[in-house]
Amino acid sequence: MSRLPPIARRAHVAPFLAMDVMAEAGARARAGEDVVSLAVGEPGAPPPRVVREAVKAALDGGRVPYTDALGLPALRERIARHYRDAYGVSIPASRVAVTTGSSAGFILSFLSMFDAGDRIAIPSPGYPAYRNILDALGIVVVELETTAETRFAITPAMVARAHAEAPLKGVLVMSPANPTGVMMTTDAVRDLAHACEAMGLWFISDEIYHGLIYDGQATTAAAHSDQAVVVNSFSKYYCMTGWRVGWLILPERLERTAECLAQSLAISVPYLSQIGGLAAFDATEELEVIKAGYARNRAILGEELPKLGLTLMPMDGAFYAYADVTRYTNDSMDFARRALREAGVGITPGLDFDRQEGHRAVRLSYAGSETDILKAVDRLKGWLRKA
Amino acid sequence: MSRLPPIARRAHVAPFLAMDVMAEAGARARAGEDVVSLAVGEPGAPPPRVVREAVKAALDGGRVPYTDALGLPALRERIARHYRDAYGVSIPASRVAVTTGSSAGFILSFLSMFDAGDRIAIPSPGYPAYRNILDALGIVVVELETTAETRFAITPAMVARAHAEAPLKGVLVMSPANPTGVMMTTDAVRDLAHACEAMGLWFISDEIYHGLIYDGQATTAAAHSDQAVVVNSFSKYYCMTGWRVGWLILPERLERTAECLAQSLAISVPYLSQIGGLAAFDATEELEVIKAGYARNRAILGEELPKLGLTLMPMDGAFYAYADVTRYTNDSMDFARRALREAGVGITPGLDFDRQEGHRAVRLSYAGSETDILKAVDRLKGWLRKA
Repeated sequence: MSRLPPIARRAHVAPFLAMDVMAEAGARARAGEDVVSLAVGEPGAPPPRVVREAVKAALDGGRVPYTDALGLPALRERIARHYRDAYGVSIPASRVAVTTGSSAGFILSFLSMFDAGDRIAIPSPGYPAYRNILDALGIVVVELETTAETRFAITPAMVARAHAEAPLKGVLVMSPANPTGVMMTTDAVRDLAHACEAMGLWFISDEIYHGLIYDGQATTAAAHSDQAVVVNSFSKYYCMTGWRVGWLILPERLERTAECLAQSLAISVPYLSQIGGLAAFDATEELEVIKAGYARNRAILGEELPKLGLTLMPMDGAFYAYADVTRYTNDSMDFARRALREAGVGITPGLDFDRQEGHRAVRLSYAGSETDILKAVDRLKGWLRKA
Repeated sequence: MSRLPPIARRAHVAPFLAMDVMAEAGARARAGEDVVSLAVGEPGAPPPRVVREAVKAALDGGRVPYTDALGLPALRERIARHYRDAYGVSIPASRVAVTTGSSAGFILSFLSMFDAGDRIAIPSPGYPAYRNILDALGIVVVELETTAETRFAITPAMVARAHAEAPLKGVLVMSPANPTGVMMTTDAVRDLAHACEAMGLWFISDEIYHGLIYDGQATTAAAHSDQAVVVNSFSKYYCMTGWRVGWLILPERLERTAECLAQSLAISVPYLSQIGGLAAFDATEELEVIKAGYARNRAILGEELPKLGLTLMPMDGAFYAYADVTRYTNDSMDFARRALREAGVGITPGLDFDRQEGHRAVRLSYAGSETDILKAVDRLKGWLRKA
């Protein structure tokens, strides 16, 4: 008789609840229900016109080949130039690695920096895929619970405390953050980058929501430390989620390591997505119009949700409102499920982002249309009035 | 003073020599040298016309969104149908996982099946990325050196021997194989699949070169075991390398595991590549013409290389000739380097594929044009006559 080999222990990662809500919302919409989904962090707009035109031209031009493992040289150069234009920071193209979305960027950089058993500090609440990817790669996640006291940022003091308990190998932050929308100040980024250098820790800065700032000015970690690893992507500001193309800024000494790993882990990043990314830098005018729409949505949520007793975190950037729901419930998963079934509004339970405190919060994405936001607010009003 | 954190030990994977040769060949070509590269396993033809048209239509249609983590339902259905059409095997669409090339399929399936420290048997010579990905994930690679005696296939007896020495958790094979082009017989695949079931081992069958068979008939491991994991891709037969889209056939009990992992590791596979993959199944006429070109190239190499004293493995499938160069050298890396510099022909040293015996062999890809193959043969003739 045959015996079945066991599934790997490390494969038992948590499901991404936001995607499960999206799947249920999709199924209900296909079944004819009128559902408004604010569950997934995905722009409602199509990719910019110049991106679509560039890709169509490439399709007419012939082959869609493998590229160098770290990306098309022209795209690496263009991304480097973006750092000069947007931040006034000089980065050689050799330090840019194009990746298949920030997702592949995390895998590539984590494997470059961390061995199994190494410990890395990440903020909570935070993006759940960090924890899941790190778990799968055998890296020990040290969640640092953030509070309003530090404006939801990890501080050098918090890192030093965790490092003293048991040595860390790195620190990962995201600013502006998913799910909260809160941005670290320039001082907070600089101080943490310098503290990591001084402690001999890797510092990873996820800057995927740069470009989508409504209050204040974003700083890149690359401006403060040439040892910082920066993760970014064309998914959010550039409206190119389904293209799966992003990039890393790497310390010079990681370049060859990342290249050899990328050759085997990925061979190459999708060619057409790289062509699209190259064109995306010329789409500023179109993208700023889209961003102005997010700003209007943000104003609506910022105005209406508190009236419903849903208090919000500072909405500095990205396109998320992170709302405290303790006025109504202590079970955000149940709240999200009922919002979908009873009000036809898809939202994401905070448990995706914070296993300790996430039962108290939900995330609403305002990357969709103003019509949807108005409809969602209206439905939530009617539903919560009955609650 | 700051201390630099160390690069991860597991990040020290071997470079993929084929890609280094490709990079040097590219640099020489850009510098004006007349180089013919047979180094990389990449079709010279553009993607099929119907693929390009489908993607252009999708670009005109609007958004390029995330999809379900395991792929567009329509593509999963279409791949399942392909197994009925091509092999007469019934596979439910729920067992199909679309992946970002076979590369992401390996990462996803390896993490689903193997914990760090688990041992997996793979054939040598073999595709170098297996070893590198497995190394990076902490999985112990047991290389089984194959010989002409078993037609370069791993047999149940070889697996049983290795398993007795120290317990294995899985076996991985590729047929037709890179770099050799050798295909396992139906009996060899069936016997090995059944042996793995009986021993309680995962069985992974890389079938990326299916569709490119010149002698005999390919069988899929999925026909012999519903516990086998099949890896495949649109890169080779379908001429879609740079699209990075492939698929897995998974045992039913791995489906949810793979879905949760894929949600975090990748979020989604590139949308346009999935649209292209869906169309690729309607491109058979165009693709068979391209395959006929490979068959002509194969005949030229099969005829001419042995005349130069380069003996070849059986060229059953794929688009590779694996040539023994011991008539000229015992250092295939030096041979490949000199072939590029002195004869202007890019080929791949066997060391990429076989650390023990690879110094005796080189791989030539015949996926390019007939003109290039004739030119390469001509140059090698002139060069080796002087050697």
